[in-house]
Parts: sequence; structure tokens; C-alpha cells
Amino acid sequence: MRILVINPNTTASMTAKIGEAAASVASGATEIVAVNPADGPPSIEGYFDEVFAIPGIIAEMGKAPADAYVIACFDDTGLDAARCATEAPVIGIGEAAFHMASLVAGKFSVVTTLARSVPAIEHNLAKYGLASRCARVRSSEVAVLELERPGSNARHRISQEIARAIREDHAEAIVLGCAGMADLAHSLSEEHGVPVLDGVVCAVTLAESLFKVGLKTSKIGGYAAPRGKRFAGMFAPLSPAG
Amino acid sequence: MRILVINPNTTASMTAKIGEAAASVASGATEIVAVNPADGPPSIEGYFDEVFAIPGIIAEMGKAPADAYVIACFDDTGLDAARCATEAPVIGIGEAAFHMASLVAGKFSVVTTLARSVPAIEHNLAKYGLASRCARVRSSEVAVLELERPGSNARHRISQEIARAIREDHAEAIVLGCAGMADLAHSLSEEHGVPVLDGVVCAVTLAESLFKVGLKTSKIGGYAAPRGKRFAGMFAPLSPAG
Amino acid sequence: MRILVINPNTTASMTAKIGEAAASVASGATEIVAVNPADGPPSIEGYFDEVFAIPGIIAEMGKAPADAYVIACFDDTGLDAARCATEAPVIGIGEAAFHMASLVAGKFSVVTTLARSVPAIEHNLAKYGLASRCARVRSSEVAVLELERPGSNARHRISQEIARAIREDHAEAIVLGCAGMADLAHSLSEEHGVPVLDGVVCAVTLAESLFKVGLKTSKIGGYAAPRGKRFAGMFAPLSPAG
Amino acid sequence: MRILVINPNTTASMTAKIGEAAASVASGATEIVAVNPADGPPSIEGYFDEVFAIPGIIAEMGKAPADAYVIACFDDTGLDAARCATEAPVIGIGEAAFHMASLVAGKFSVVTTLARSVPAIEHNLAKYGLASRCARVRSSEVAVLELERPGSNARHRISQEIARAIREDHAEAIVLGCAGMADLAHSLSEEHGVPVLDGVVCAVTLAESLFKVGLKTSKIGGYAAPRGKRFAGMFAPLSPAG
Amino acid sequence: MRILVINPNTTASMTAKIGEAAASVASGATEIVAVNPADGPPSIEGYFDEVFAIPGIIAEMGKAPADAYVIACFDDTGLDAARCATEAPVIGIGEAAFHMASLVAGKFSVVTTLARSVPAIEHNLAKYGLASRCARVRSSEVAVLELERPGSNARHRISQEIARAIREDHAEAIVLGCAGMADLAHSLSEEHGVPVLDGVVCAVTLAESLFKVGLKTSKIGGYAAPRGKRFAGMFAPLSPAG
Amino acid sequence: MRILVINPNTTASMTAKIGEAAASVASGATEIVAVNPADGPPSIEGYFDEVFAIPGIIAEMGKAPADAYVIACFDDTGLDAARCATEAPVIGIGEAAFHMASLVAGKFSVVTTLARSVPAIEHNLAKYGLASRCARVRSSEVAVLELERPGSNARHRISQEIARAIREDHAEAIVLGCAGMADLAHSLSEEHGVPVLDGVVCAVTLAESLFKVGLKTSKIGGYAAPRGKRFAGMFAPLSPAG
Repeated sequence: MRILVINPNTTASMTAKIGEAAASVASGATEIVAVNPADGPPSIEGYFDEVFAIPGIIAEMGKAPADAYVIACFDDTGLDAARCATEAPVIGIGEAAFHMASLVAGKFSVVTTLARSVPAIEHNLAKYGLASRCARVRSSEVAVLELERPGSNARHRISQEIARAIREDHAEAIVLGCAGMADLAHSLSEEHGVPVLDGVVCAVTLAESLFKVGLKTSKIGGYAAPRGKRFAGMFAPLSPAG
Repeated sequence: MRILVINPNTTASMTAKIGEAAASVASGATEIVAVNPADGPPSIEGYFDEVFAIPGIIAEMGKAPADAYVIACFDDTGLDAARCATEAPVIGIGEAAFHMASLVAGKFSVVTTLARSVPAIEHNLAKYGLASRCARVRSSEVAVLELERPGSNARHRISQEIARAIREDHAEAIVLGCAGMADLAHSLSEEHGVPVLDGVVCAVTLAESLFKVGLKTSKIGGYAAPRGKRFAGMFAPLSPAG
Repeated sequence: MRILVINPNTTASMTAKIGEAAASVASGATEIVAVNPADGPPSIEGYFDEVFAIPGIIAEMGKAPADAYVIACFDDTGLDAARCATEAPVIGIGEAAFHMASLVAGKFSVVTTLARSVPAIEHNLAKYGLASRCARVRSSEVAVLELERPGSNARHRISQEIARAIREDHAEAIVLGCAGMADLAHSLSEEHGVPVLDGVVCAVTLAESLFKVGLKTSKIGGYAAPRGKRFAGMFAPLSPAG
Repeated sequence: MRILVINPNTTASMTAKIGEAAASVASGATEIVAVNPADGPPSIEGYFDEVFAIPGIIAEMGKAPADAYVIACFDDTGLDAARCATEAPVIGIGEAAFHMASLVAGKFSVVTTLARSVPAIEHNLAKYGLASRCARVRSSEVAVLELERPGSNARHRISQEIARAIREDHAEAIVLGCAGMADLAHSLSEEHGVPVLDGVVCAVTLAESLFKVGLKTSKIGGYAAPRGKRFAGMFAPLSPAG
Repeated sequence: MRILVINPNTTASMTAKIGEAAASVASGATEIVAVNPADGPPSIEGYFDEVFAIPGIIAEMGKAPADAYVIACFDDTGLDAARCATEAPVIGIGEAAFHMASLVAGKFSVVTTLARSVPAIEHNLAKYGLASRCARVRSSEVAVLELERPGSNARHRISQEIARAIREDHAEAIVLGCAGMADLAHSLSEEHGVPVLDGVVCAVTLAESLFKVGLKTSKIGGYAAPRGKRFAGMFAPLSPAG
Repeated sequence: MRILVINPNTTASMTAKIGEAAASVASGATEIVAVNPADGPPSIEGYFDEVFAIPGIIAEMGKAPADAYVIACFDDTGLDAARCATEAPVIGIGEAAFHMASLVAGKFSVVTTLARSVPAIEHNLAKYGLASRCARVRSSEVAVLELERPGSNARHRISQEIARAIREDHAEAIVLGCAGMADLAHSLSEEHGVPVLDGVVCAVTLAESLFKVGLKTSKIGGYAAPRGKRFAGMFAPLSPAG
């Protein structure tokens, strides 16, 4: 099968890191294609950045049809719209991590980047139904692109926030709240003695699971295919992939 | 004060109808400016259409700074992102109607256009906290642009759905779930003997209320101003309005 | 239009302050009449005081029919009963502030007077559906009538509690939990850099909004008019206003 | 022990029926005193009637101190205020029935009198935390005083509504939603083969339970004793009972 | 009437203590029989221990039919299954304490033994519908059998946790989260000035209440009698008691 | 990797069917071992049957340590206890189907066997946090072992219930609520044009996912390893698997 892993921001080094994480866990028979839009924000930090990344996500889906799609931003940017655009499964890395954490722990906490991203994550948890499984969404005040900068103390600050989540929230597992933290999950889990989840690898294996089971996105209700009307201006007609 | 009323779709006849509704209720001292983006979907029916309308909404805000903004699509398309882009109040017509209905009735039902729009409205209700006030979100299976077509039986079907909401849901008020229904609220309320709310007039008066009280969008937390990074490609830098 | 603003307690100085706040925000065309019952508690602090204020509220409504009514106690004392007594809109200052805060912030905290008032406010939030928008209801341990006493350090203690709400609750806005704090909202907002809401001005502008839009209290369901039975003893028959 | 059972309305025949039900279940050592206020509404049907009954309830408590109090209106009229007025336990018949039903069934439905009473009961269920245990609150459209009228078909209509609750709501038990139905519970349970609960007997035995265990109303927080201020006018100072 | 009080663990000293607590509150006419299974865990601390105690509970019910059953482990071990096995009422001491606490306080906190027991208690609260009444479930890190050991400082640590619950959670009452704490409730209530509830006495009086009112477990839905199939191996056929 | 798939009932033909379903979806490198306890109920229909199956589940886990465990009863019988007994992942087929359905549909309905099983499934959904994703749990009134009987009209009745779920609940996907329905999912999905999920294949692929990602059950909090105490009587000491 082929999984298109879309980093919704325009930072190519992050796309590479995400692609590596995805490939590290994929089955031999799975082809991972990691892309990012050419247009849009260099990182997604809050509601504003988010909406400017979505047309690019949909465009990438149109360019490279796949058996499943992974949206590799922890906000699950544009997930609902992407599901309308295809019959293939579409998985957000945020939801992937929440669902997988729910299988290994009674309660988890999220450690994300900036405080401004917390409300969007809390809304997603409520929408998915999993808010009651999340003890708390915490911000480490590490900006997304700091994670790309060698020599920053980003890992240290994230680790401290994890310690607080275990002590104060009684979290039984930790979900890392940014695709740019994909390379930290293993060592932080070792350090703290609890499951620490990165959404990228969770989403890739869930996409494989759905494909194996033969499950596709429901086309009745909210994820029905677009009605085929002509959009004005900059948005070219999009042919939904199969 | 000046209120920019943004119809997020590109259908000018709908913008005109919305503008009229807005003007009908605004104070003499309030200037109503009704606009729509040149680019984007001709109507918003579900998650997919929604995301392609948002960049245009933000662009219209940048072109015509105002004392308050109204987003005149019942999905409250792009509301969170728009709030990040300005300190002025931003009101969605969906939330406006939900809040106003909560002041005149214990429970209300929503009558919207197509079934595919129901999940987005339900998610908004949950996010706003008002899901417990809504007995049910119902679709009349009237497409948005049918509302613009003289001679369609749209009003009849909406009226029938209202009757069902009163009988089956024990709804004490009805919220009309589309900006294109703005001209129907008064006569439907007369017909059914319950408050029937159109979000456009609700949002305009709420915008005036917030302005009079001197309330602006909070700039700490989720609605903090964008961090000023440079977006790639098609999205020109945006100067947040005051 | 005429708005009857009812201070449910018997303290005339508080009625005057509330009337001033109400007038400060009302449109030129709006007549504000501020009253209080002659009988009942001098301040409302908790469940017990509340119930003794309600017959007086209903009596004031009967004496001075108006186009809309505002109940100016943060507990929204007797709101449901008052809605039964009239077709005109009735707004509580608590609910008014909660709804308006929800339009300018993702989450707000309430700062009220005494700890004994907290449960009633929490129940109202749950009943209105807005509990999920409120981070926390905090008490400043300032008694209601201390707010009327020149030279008390009431403002200082309230300000400290606001600082805690921003730091600990991540509140994006603050709702002041007592009609007697109406004169403090503006300066506290300046001091803390977040929206600080007083319910009196919120309720007055919402009453104007409902009037302009032509919305009245639903008369089917919970707010149906009283059945016209004869009450024994001290309660004179009441003619519901229009 | 002595239990004061207060019928909050002024209809003496209903007080007698309630007193009989209470006595039928009380232990030999328990003295049941059934009273009603002289002033107030003859029946309680909705929010409006409710508030005019509460001062009378508190007055009856002051006149006849007891070891426990039962408020015998299904709306649990004035329950919170009554708890402030005494250290002794106070039980509402609505909450009593909800709690007892939760011990013998996974889900129950309520069958009450008029539609206008449904919202108040739903709010109580939510406030008590037991809304998730209640499948549905149904109205039989039998007015309270019809229950007192020999020859009315009240029992038949209630029985039909119970049948619907079992069939449509999958209710495993039925709670009768009016003190005036106290005499019907046993035969309706026989008829339908499910537990049918009357709140009066539930409340009396719960009051005995609390007394035997030595539990009193908590005096910190929401049920703290009134602050001892002087109320103006018609409300005489009240000495809280012990 | 006869109440079978089942301590689900095999520690006889705890059964004796539980039996004494039960007898101390039962009416003269009530016969208390306190038993424990011969097989199973010596104490119940978490999900694992719990499931090994349930077959023994059901077996004890089969051996000694009674008018009501009390399951004397705070986890309410096997409560649903036990309800299937009989028409008589079955009460868990956890639920008993939660319901009774809800009658004397707006909010309570639970103080239990080990952290590992907290999730099971939280799930029960959610299932019963009473999670919103519980401010927090706290662990004192006192193991169950420490409560049986003279000279341990168990009471001191529990008392400290109660103090924290009052100060930090604003709890208005405390529920002791282990049957082995039954002898501490009275003195801890005296010490802290709030209701402190032991589930054993609560459950016994509730069982008496249900018996007096004539309420039995509903036999439609989730608590229907077992279908009478033959179980393989170690589980002898069980004759449901009446 | 090796996955132990445990059918908690003693019906070998069902174990074989479950094993086939599991093998059909497993990767080539995955060894599926399907077992059932020798002792316990022949089918699990409701709370009572459930608890007698759990000791056998734990015993099977002790006999055949594996890299992951699947509990193949839709009630997720004994899931929490099983998680305490091992560090390896343990997946219930109910939760597996709920989580996977949440990735391809906004809302799903469950179609299970008998009405008596509905409450347990509803409780699980609430506990997992996914109740808001489930439109309704429906029973087809097909007993578990009817599914094993050639010539029964079980499939027909299940199909009719699915049609009702789509029409009445607006379900966008269907979850089959019994392991014995594993062979029906594909053809029912074809017939109704929506995703129809069988929990067995979902659980197997999720177990593979967790294994690939390296996630194990958290050992702090509710799933901590048993404390190593000696159980009396029939339950032999159990060595938790790694």
C-alpha cells in the first residue's frame, strides 16, 4: 500500500524527520511518501496558521493519490475536509496518538509546544470524545521550529513538563503534542518509565490497520463527497481520490 | 461604529440579502458593510467547502478594517482564525443565534439545509458549550442555493421541519441554520407561535452590544495575534486589524 | 424601549450604582428604570437569601411593565419564574456576562464574593450549558456590602483573585460575580490586560438586542404563563405583563 | 425521631394523602408530622408556582423543628434554601426517588404531570448528577389537582405513559413525578412488572437512614447557615433549627 | 429482615469489623449476617484483585439467601453480576456512600487507600452518574491491611488527606474509600467538622429502606436473571435467590 | 510477534471462527493463537456470565505468554484485570471496533445480540470516552449461539437492525456487537454501503500496531502489576507475563 504523509507546514527539514519516523515503523510492503505544500505557514501554532495550511493539504492529496493519508500536524489540521475529499482513510496524528494512548493507559496528558495551541487541542479531544481520557493538555513553551534547531534545550523543557504531568496530573502515559517531537518519544519513555507516544508512528500503523481491514471513510453524513460545484478563483477543481 | 458582515461564499445575491437583514436591525449610528470574497465556493455545505472559504474571509478583514466583524455562514466558518486576526469582536451567526435562543427558551432545535452540514453544527454546539440547550439539529434537505431560487418550495419544507421539531423534540424555539434563510424568520415565527431566530440579525446586535460595552477579543491564549512569521506562496502577509 | 432593571436586594445604594451602570451603556432611545423590592434581604449571599428575594422581584415586574427586564443579581435570582410571568425578554446579569464572555474568549473565570455563593453559580453555569467555558468560579471573600463601603480593600482583593485566575486557570477573560462590582470592570480590565465583564451592562445591551430583533420569551414549555390559579394568602394575584 | 413532611402547596387533601404514605413506611419509633403552608399556590406546576411556595416551606420549618425534613413536591422546591436553614437532614422527594431508583435499575424514566414541569425536573436531574441514569422525563398531561379528583382517568393516562417508557425508552424502572401519585405506585408496579417509585416513601426512609447513621447537612460551602442579616418587611427573622 | 453483608476478601478480621459496623446501625428487627468467601484475595486493591473475588461473592449469595445483600468492598466488586443473581436489592458500599453524601453536601471528596484503586472508583462514579458530585478521589497510600494493624499511623495519614480535601477541593463532605475504615468515620467527622461517611452503615440503612418500601431489583434490561445455561467446570449451577 | 486471541466463552466453534477472522488479517510475520478457557459460560450475555469468564481469561494468559493479547468478547470482559496481569498490550474487541469506527465515521451505531447486553456496552463506551461517537446501541435479539447455528435467520435480523440504525440514528458506520458476527462484516458493508466493523480484525491489527510502535501497557496507576499477595483457594498464584 501507499501512504501519503502530509506535513501541512512548509518546513522541509520537518517533513524529512516526519518521513523518517513514518518509514521506521511501516511494514516492508508499505510505501511512505512524505510531502509538504509549497505554500502556507512554516509552522502551525494556533488557529490562524492552521487555516492557511488546509488548501495546500487538499492540493497535495489531489496530486498524489494514495491508499491512505496521514496529516502530520498535531492539530489534525483540515482532517474533516480531507476526509470529504477521498474514500481512502485519512488519519490525523493527534487523534492517532489519543486513540493509541487510550489502549495502554487509563489517562494520558499531552505535552505540546506553545500555550496558544492548547485550546485547539482541547477542542479536538472533546470532538473526538476522548477529553475524559486526557488529564491535561500542557504547553512546554517550546516553539515548533526550536525543535529543529540543534543546541536548543527543547528536549530538556519537554522532559520537565512530562515529569510534572506524571506527578501532578497522575497521567499514566504522555502524548507528545507536535510532529516535530517524533524523534524524542523513545528516549523520553525510557527516561520516565511510562508510555510516551508520537503521533506520526501511531498514525502510520493505524493507516495500515484500516487498509488491512478494508475500512474506508464513510460517505454518508459529514464526510460525503463534495457536491461538485465550481469554486471561484484560486482553487482549481479537485478530483477526489479513490 | 462600522460592522463588516462577511458572507464567506461567493454568491452576491446572498450577500445582498444578508446585508439587508443586517441593516434592518442595526442602529442608526451603525454602518453595515456587507462583502464576500471573490474566490472560494459559491455556497458552504459541509466541511470541504468550509475550509476553502476561510482565506477569503481573512483577506476581506484585512481589506476593510472595522469595529466588529460578523461571519455570515451558519457553520461559523473560520471564526477562531478570524479572532486571532483582530482585536475587534468577531461574531459568527451560528453562535449568535445559539446564545440569543438560550435567552428566550430552555431548549431550541436547529433547522438547517443538508444532512452533510449537521455534524459541523453539532460540533460547534459542543465546542461553544451549548449542546445541552439544543434538542436536535435537523436538516430540511433544502440546498443553500435553492433558497435563492424564486418558486422553490424551500420555505414549505423548512416550515414542515419546524413543526416536527416542536412536536417531536419539544423545542421551545427554532434556530434557522443558514444565512440564506434570514428573510424567513419573522413569518415562520408568526406561523408556529415560537421564537424563530435568524443568526444574521442576532450577530449584528451582539456586535453592537460588545462594542457599546467596550469588549474586545482576548489576546491571551487561543486568540493571541499570529506570531508574525512569513507565509510561503499565495498568502500575502496580513496586517491584523485593530 | 423601557428596561426595568431590578436589584433583587433592598439596598438602595446598590440599586443606584446598578442604575448608573445600566444607563451608561443604554442607547439614547432606551429608558432605564432601576428598582428594588421594599421587602427581602439587604444582600444576596447564597441559596437562602435568594429565595426570599423572588416574590419581590415578581411584584416589581407587576408594578412596572416594561419591554424587557434585567435581574441584577449575579445568581440570576428567580430568572425562570420571572420568564413565566411575562412575554417580554428577561435577562439575568450572570447569564448575560457568561454569554458575552463566550464571544470574546475561549475560557473565562468568575470572581465572586463569598465561598457560599460559588455552588449556586456553578449550578447556573451547568444549567445554561456554559460550564465548559468557565475555567473556575473563585471567591474573593469580599462580602456584598463591603463593596458599598468606601475605604474597604475590596478592589484590591478582587484584583489579586483575577491575577490568580489568569495564572492558574489560564482564563482568557474574567467575569465579575456580583452586581456591586459593576463600577470596577473597566479599570480591572486595563490593569490585567484581559476582558473583564460586568453583568449589568452586558444584560442591558442584550435586552436591547432581543428587543431590536423582536425576540420574546417562548411561551411553550418551561416558560408557559402561569395557569391562573388563585394563590392563598400573602401573594396577590399577579397580572403577567406583555 | 420526628420527621416534618412539608407539602409545599396549600391543598390539605394532598397533605393528608402524603402524610398517610409517609406513615405507612416509617418505623414505629418515627413520628411523622405532615403540614402545608397556609399561604401560597394550591398546586405546583412549573417554575412560577414553585418560588411562591418556598417562603412558606421555610416558615413551616421554623415553626416545628424536627430531626429531619422532607419536602414533598417532586420539583424539590426550595431544597437548597431549606438545607441552609437547618443542620438536620433535608430530603426532597424528587431526589429521593432518583437515588433509590438508581439502586434497583440501570435506567429509569420519570412520568410527571404537565409538560411545563419537565424542564425543572430535567434541571434537577442534571444538578444532582443523575441525568445519565434517567432515560427520559415524560409528562402524562394530568394536572396535579386532577389526581385528587375521584373519577378522573388520571391513573389510566399515567399507566399508558409508563407502558411507553418501558417500550420506547428501555426504562428499567419508573419514577412517579408528583407527590399526588403516592397512592398509585404499588398497583402500577404490579401492573407493569417493573419497580415504580413514589418519592414520598423513598424520602421518609432516606431521612430515617441519615438519622440512624448520624449524618447532618454540611455547614461549609453552599449550605452554610444564613449570615444573620435582618430581612426587610414581610419576612420575620428565622431561627434556624438544629 | 435479613441482610447478608459480604466482605469480598478473605480477611476474617475485616469481616468482623464490617459486621460490627453493620449491626451498630441496623434496626432491632434486622438480622445482619456478615460473611466472606473462603477463596480469593485477602484484600482488594485494584482491578486484578477485584475479578477474583466475584465468583466467591456470588457463591456466598447462593449459600445464604437474604432479603437484601450488601457488598462490602468500596469498589462495589461484582455489583452488576450480583444484581442479576437475585430479585432482592443488592447495594454496594461505594455507591451507598456516594448517594448518601449527595443528600447532605453539594460536593464530596473520596479518601481511599492506594493510588491503583483510584481509577476503578472514578469509573464507578461516572457509571453511577455521580462524578459531578465528587470533587476528587484521593489516595492516602495506606494499604488495606495496614488498617487492620494496630499501631500503624493509618488514621493519621487519612486525616491529613481529609484536611487537604477540604482545603484544596472545597469538599463539603468526605467519603471514606475502604470498608476497613468503617470504625474511623465518627471521630474523623468530629475532628474535621464535616460529614465523613463510611459506606457500610450507609449501605445497611439503604438496604433497610429499599426493603421497607418494597423495592426489588428490576428484572428487565441489564439485571435480567441469567439465562440458565450450563457453565463448564468449576462453577456449579447457581440458583438465583428470591 | 505472537498474539494470543482469547475467546472468553467455552464454545470451541466460536473460537475457531474467531481464530480464522484473526488470521485473515494478520501479517505474515504474526502468529495467531486462538484459545478459550475450559471452564466458564458457553456464551457471554450480560453482566452475570461475564464475571465467570474472567478467571479463565487470566489463566489462559498465564499459560501462553504472548507479545499481545486480544480479548474476543464484545463486552471487553476482564480487560482491566488482564492489563494488570501483563506488560504486553491487551486489546478488547469492543474498544478496538469503537476506536477504528471513530477514524472512518463521525458517528456509529452498535448492533449487538440481546437487550440484556446493551447496558454493559453503553457503560464501556462511557468509560472509554467514546459515548459521544456512538449514536445508539441496538439489540437484534439474536442470541450468541444462534449465530453458530446454520439455518437461523440471524443475518437477516442483524441486517434489518443496521438499516434502522442508518435511517433513524443517522449512523455513518456500524459496529457489530458480538465476536460471533465476525464473518458477516464484509457482506453487510457491501449491502448497506457503509463501513461495518467486526472487532476481532480491528483488535488484531491494533495489537500489531502497538507492537510495531513499541507501546506497552502503562504500569503506573490503574494497571500496576498485582501486589503479589497470596490468594486463597482455587486461584493458583499467577505469574504475570512480560
